[in-house]
Parts: sequence; C-alpha cells; structure tokens
Amino acid sequence: MTDQDLNKRALEYHQYPKPGKISIELTKPAETADDLALAYSPGVAEPVRAIAENPNDAYKYTNKGNLVAVISNGSAILGLGNLGALASKPVMEGKALLFKRFAGLDSIDIEVENESPQAFCDTVARIACSFGGINLEDIKAPECFEIERQLIERLQIPVFHDDQHGTAIVTVAGLLNAIELSGKNIEEVKVVCLGAGAAATACLRLMITAGIRRHNIIACDRRGVIHDGRGDLTPEKAMFAAIQTDCRTLEDAINGADVFLGLAGANQLSAEQLKTMAPNPIVFACANPDPEIRPELAHSTRDDVIMATGRSDYPNQVNNVLCFPYIFRGAMDVRARHITHEMKMAAVYAIAELAKEPVPQEVLDAYGLESLEFGHEYIIPKPNDPRLLGKVSMAVAEAAIEIGVARLPLPENYPLSGLEDV
Amino acid sequence: MTDQDLNKRALEYHQYPKPGKISIELTKPAETADDLALAYSPGVAEPVRAIAENPNDAYKYTNKGNLVAVISNGSAILGLGNLGALASKPVMEGKALLFKRFAGLDSIDIEVENESPQAFCDTVARIACSFGGINLEDIKAPECFEIERQLIERLQIPVFHDDQHGTAIVTVAGLLNAIELSGKNIEEVKVVCLGAGAAATACLRLMITAGIRRHNIIACDRRGVIHDGRGDLTPEKAMFAAIQTDCRTLEDAINGADVFLGLAGANQLSAEQLKTMAPNPIVFACANPDPEIRPELAHSTRDDVIMATGRSDYPNQVNNVLCFPYIFRGAMDVRARHITHEMKMAAVYAIAELAKEPVPQEVLDAYGLESLEFGHEYIIPKPNDPRLLGKVSMAVAEAAIEIGVARLPLPENYPLSGLEDV
Repeated sequence: MTDQDLNKRALEYHQYPKPGKISIELTKPAETADDLALAYSPGVAEPVRAIAENPNDAYKYTNKGNLVAVISNGSAILGLGNLGALASKPVMEGKALLFKRFAGLDSIDIEVENESPQAFCDTVARIACSFGGINLEDIKAPECFEIERQLIERLQIPVFHDDQHGTAIVTVAGLLNAIELSGKNIEEVKVVCLGAGAAATACLRLMITAGIRRHNIIACDRRGVIHDGRGDLTPEKAMFAAIQTDCRTLEDAINGADVFLGLAGANQLSAEQLKTMAPNPIVFACANPDPEIRPELAHSTRDDVIMATGRSDYPNQVNNVLCFPYIFRGAMDVRARHITHEMKMAAVYAIAELAKEPVPQEVLDAYGLESLEFGHEYIIPKPNDPRLLGKVSMAVAEAAIEIGVARLPLPENYPLSGLEDV
Repeated sequence: MTDQDLNKRALEYHQYPKPGKISIELTKPAETADDLALAYSPGVAEPVRAIAENPNDAYKYTNKGNLVAVISNGSAILGLGNLGALASKPVMEGKALLFKRFAGLDSIDIEVENESPQAFCDTVARIACSFGGINLEDIKAPECFEIERQLIERLQIPVFHDDQHGTAIVTVAGLLNAIELSGKNIEEVKVVCLGAGAAATACLRLMITAGIRRHNIIACDRRGVIHDGRGDLTPEKAMFAAIQTDCRTLEDAINGADVFLGLAGANQLSAEQLKTMAPNPIVFACANPDPEIRPELAHSTRDDVIMATGRSDYPNQVNNVLCFPYIFRGAMDVRARHITHEMKMAAVYAIAELAKEPVPQEVLDAYGLESLEFGHEYIIPKPNDPRLLGKVSMAVAEAAIEIGVARLPLPENYPLSGLEDV
C-alpha cells in the first residue's frame, strides 16, 4: 500500500459512515418513565447526596473509575509538530479508541487551547475530578516535563505522559530481551541514544533502573553528543550529559557501542556507522514512519544485528499500545494515586516476560504466522496479544499495592483473563 | 413507590452492573492491524494535516460535530444546593444519557472545580474546541448569567444554560396552550411568578417575547414582591421589578391573577391564595419534587384550574427534556454559532403546536392511556413523544438559518423522522 493509498483510506475511515471514531452509549436502561426517574430527576438526587457526603462514592455511582481523559494541547502532534489543539483531535480520539479496544477503559479526548503551560495545568486540574485517570499526549518538550510534574503533584489520580513513559516502558522491555538474546552483560552494555527529547530521556531513566550503567550511556541531540562541557543543556538533557568523553558526534559515539536507540528521525544511522558497532549489536530505530535505519539495510550490512522499529510491517514493533491501556487498567483497578516508577518497571518486566511465553494461536492467525518464538525476530509481544491485559495490569496493580499508592486491594476478578472482566 | 424505595432503587440503578450510566464505544472497526493503522499511527496523520489546514475539517473527521459537553461546577445541583463539582457528576451523566436517548447526540459530562466564575469560563473556553456544543448545568445564580454571557461571546459553538432556557422554553410552550384553553387574551393575562432565580427570569423574558405584557407581570422572591422601591435587587431581578404597584406579598399579588408560575419550593401557594385568583386560573407549580401546591389540593379547591407541575406522575409535566436534546440537535445540525432568542422561540412554538396534534399510539401505550387530546390534562407533549425530534429540531434549525447564525444549510435528511437519521 502506498502512502497515498493509506492517506486516502485513512480519511475515508475517519469520515464514513459518520465522522470520528468514538461515541457515547448508555449502559443503563433509559426507555420507560421509571427508567428516567432513576437515571435523572428525581432518583439521581440520591447518588448526588451520597457523593457529597463521601467523595469516594463517585467510583460507585458514576463512570469516573473507568474513565480516562486523553488530553493534549496539540503542541507536538505525532511527528508533525505544533499544529494546535483542534488538529490533535483525531489522534486523541484514536488513543481513546485504543484504551477501549485493548483494556475496556472508557476514554474521552479533551483538546486544550495552548495558552501557556500554567494555563494548561490549571485547566486540567480543574476538570480532573470528572475522570479516573489522565493520559497526557503529544505535548512538546520541555513543557511536558513541568506539566506532568505539576499535575502529578496536584492530583490524586494517575497522570501519565504516554509519549515519555509508554515509549520508555515498551522500549526497555524489548531492550532487556534483546540484551539477553545477544548474550551481553547488562552492566557492561554501551548505549548510544540518538534524540534527547521527552521519550529519549524517559527511556534513559528506565534503562538505568533496569541495570544499564549511567556511565555507559551517551545521548546525542541535533548538535551531537550531550556532554558536560556543553552550555546549552536543559535540565532534562543535563541529567544524561556524558562525563569524561571525547566523543562529539554520533560517529564517535557509535563506535564499539552495543545498543543504538533511535528516537530522532529517518535514516540518521548509516550502514557505515552500524558496521562500527560491537558484535551482536542491538538497533532500536524507532522514528516513525521512517526509522533511523531501514531493517533491510541493517540486516544486509551485518547479520548479527537485533533490530526493532516503530513499524507494524517489520518484526519487533515498539508500540506504546503494549503498555498504556494496561498500566491505566492496573493503576485504576486498585485506585492508585499515582503511576510510580516501580509500577512502570513492573510493566517493563511483565511485557518482557510475556515475549518468552508460547504465543496463542489467535495471535499467530492474525499475522498469518505458523509459529513465533522468542528470538531475534520476536523480542516484544504483538499488540493484539490478549494476554497483555491480564499480565501487565496485574503486575502494575501489584506494584501499586506494594509501593503503597493503591487505595483498593486487588479486585476479585484479577488477574483479568479478557475484556469481559473489565 | 415511596421516596425511600425510589432512593434505594436509584442507587442500585447507578451502581450495577457497573458504575455510572454512560460508556465510550467505538464507531469504527479496530480489530486488525490494518484497522489500527488507519485509526491511529500512521494513518491518523492525514486527518490531522487536513484539520490543521482547515479547522472545519474537524467536523468531517472527528466526532466534534455530534458531541455535546454537559458542564457544571456543582454550585446549584438540582434543588440540593452547592455540593461541589464531583457530587454533580451523576446529574451530568444523566443529562448526557438524555442527550443520547432522545436526540442521538453523543454527550460527555465535565465537572469543573468551582474556583471562581472567571476560572470556570477560562477552563470551559480552553477545552471548548473538543466539542460541538456546550450545555451548562446546575450553576448557581447570579454567576450563571455572567458565565453564560461570557462563554457565548468567546465561543462560536452553541452554549446554552439549560436551567434557564430549557425550563423557560418548555414552561412558555405549556403556558401558551394553557392561555389558549382558558380563553384568556394573552395581552391581558396577569402573571405572578414566585421565585426570581435563573429559571424564573429566563421564563419571564420568553413570556414577554411570546406576548405577555411586561406591566402584567409581578415577580416575587423570598422577600416578597420585587418592586422598584427595593434597594436589594440584582440586575436580573431589577429587570422585572414591578412598577407602580402596592402589592408587597404573594398574597397581595395573587389576588385576581390569571397565571401563577411557581419556581420556588414546596407548598408555597395555599388553597386560600388559589381561591383569590381570576376565573380559569393557570397554575404552573414547577418546584421539584414537591410542587408549590399539590394538584389534588388545587383541583379540590377549584374546578376551573389548569395545572402543570414538574412531576411525571401528574398530567402536564414541564420537563426540560422536551427541549434541550432537540434545540442542540437542530442548532448543531446547521452548525449554528449560537442559540439565539429566535431559536428558543421557535422551540417554544414547535413544542406548543405538537400538543395539538393527534398523539401516536406508542405514546399512549407507554402511559397505558386510551386517548390523549389537547385539553386541560394535556397541554404539553409527553417526554417520550418521538415526533419532538423532528419537529423541534427542524424549527430550531430553520430559525438559525433565517436569523443568520447557521453555517450549513438544512441537512438532506431533515426533518428527522427518528433516531436512525441522526
């Protein structure tokens, strides 16, 4: 399918038979006068009184506990840049669709006019009581850091900037498996990260928690290696500035590296650079739609590479949808106050582990595959793997309980075996 | 059914089988990898680009055009008072349910923490681009006036405070029919309005447009008759201050009045006061759940009274649901910038006219009635009348076009014959 075909079909998909991708439906009968007397006046006064007396009753009598707001200011839409709040609506509706499809979470998109980061925070904080969780999306760096930090502090429901943490969780899950398959020692792997935006710094932070050594990481932005001699670093970049390195360019840094993580843009890793990497190199070329190096080129350049991309048409797709529906599901099911670092790591390990288990037939069928086994071509679960819901949500919920941010014990129906449980 | 029974059943209705009354559902396929490539990355980039170039394309590729936000700060929830944003959620979800049930409009509730009227306006204005219309609800007076006025000025989508205008439209529709049935001349009817809040002042404004003379209206608040000698009047009350009257109490004012409109509270009109009204008096006792005078008491006091209440268990229920789903449907279907006074009056006349037409069998069946004919016991259509959708939406859409606030012509499927058209 050409890009042009895809674009045409995407417009048709969005427009017909009616505009958009989500609707509101009733979960209760609303036919008879009796139904309406319960749903609205006079019956509705009773749940109002109950919630006024005990705010937690909102989880009992409204959809709050199953409702995620997907909120953006449209300042960094996909790779397209700052196109404004309204233009981000198809993406946010899409995210809402994925929350429902994969985790049974009701989700509504809210686009916020981008006046200032503080106005954005105030707006989200004021409407937050309507929801059980808030997924921030497509907000540009560096504002996204301050926005997320402030909202986490102000609110007592999960707030999660998926572009940062969803990406980081799935990337590190895949990376752990790639390192294992390559026979490398995690404490010694040398990582070069190309790109130093919100996703990249979140990835580096989780990598370090997962066991990669801080001094084995070199990050590069558009100006080359981020090192402690540079005077132009934001606080987030400064956290990952290389110490005592002579490397100044990607070319310098990649020489002998074990891992290349690309979160930058199309074709920024050359075959020549790939050749200089250590034996059994790991290349995560995650730029979308065009990776930092095409898998065909990487594999024809050397046959010992383990490769992942952001694309669905190659093996090992690093796709946020492996994480965000389930991390919210798990967090919200135990009514966690926040999504902590420990909960993110629990998701990393759950996703990584799942790739080592036998793949269900329905997953194979969906991809027309005979078999799929843990190995170079399968280091990350497929997005349609129905076990993700049970495994990842359970791991996240347990971590929330263990770290003390959960307000409820594990629900009775855990681990979830499918969407019918949610 | 006792109140206690109703309350118990209402809590059960809201809690089981799952909390709340609405959910988000997908309107597009989202099963295969191809589906997801259209719904989300990479396909979703194309509608994003289209909307960035032409903001109106949001109506083509997202659910914006069919989506109404029901927004409250919880400062005047039903008759229960200022119980806060969260406690209003069951009511707002209920309103969303009614929008869907009666007009096929997708609707989501947003509760806004009530910091200040200005913060409320700023918050709503910043998120407004997500929606095709905004229904304000349960916001206390006098703040509701300024909030609605400011949002109408700031936004180019319908903004409508239902407690004011929905109530007014349905009340005046019923009143016009009652006046006709009583054989009174509208230019001479004397009206006493008990209550001078947001709904009351909106009713009085529409009454005057409908032909009732300003000097024939006396409004009363808790302190008695609102007259131009009082120094304690808000601007909204001052608009309806009686000029050159000696009346100081409801008792003074009601003597010889043709119409009593109660928007105040239980049992505030006595049988003795009713006795002093003019022949063929019209009593709209709209306080919920307990009217200003019980219909049984009114009818046993005099047999020439035409009576309406807010209750579903008596004839002539003044119920906002006769209006708000359809006024938004009509306004949004022609993409009206605002809901104007003319559009409200168009709704008044459409609702009033409908009560004079033969009643469909399904409406009779739902109430277990043999027949229902325009008369003292039937001055307003029943809430489940399926013709409201076509009649009221059409009238509103046409009025929007005529007054010049519509951005689209009448849709091809107008007048709507049922929910399948929407």
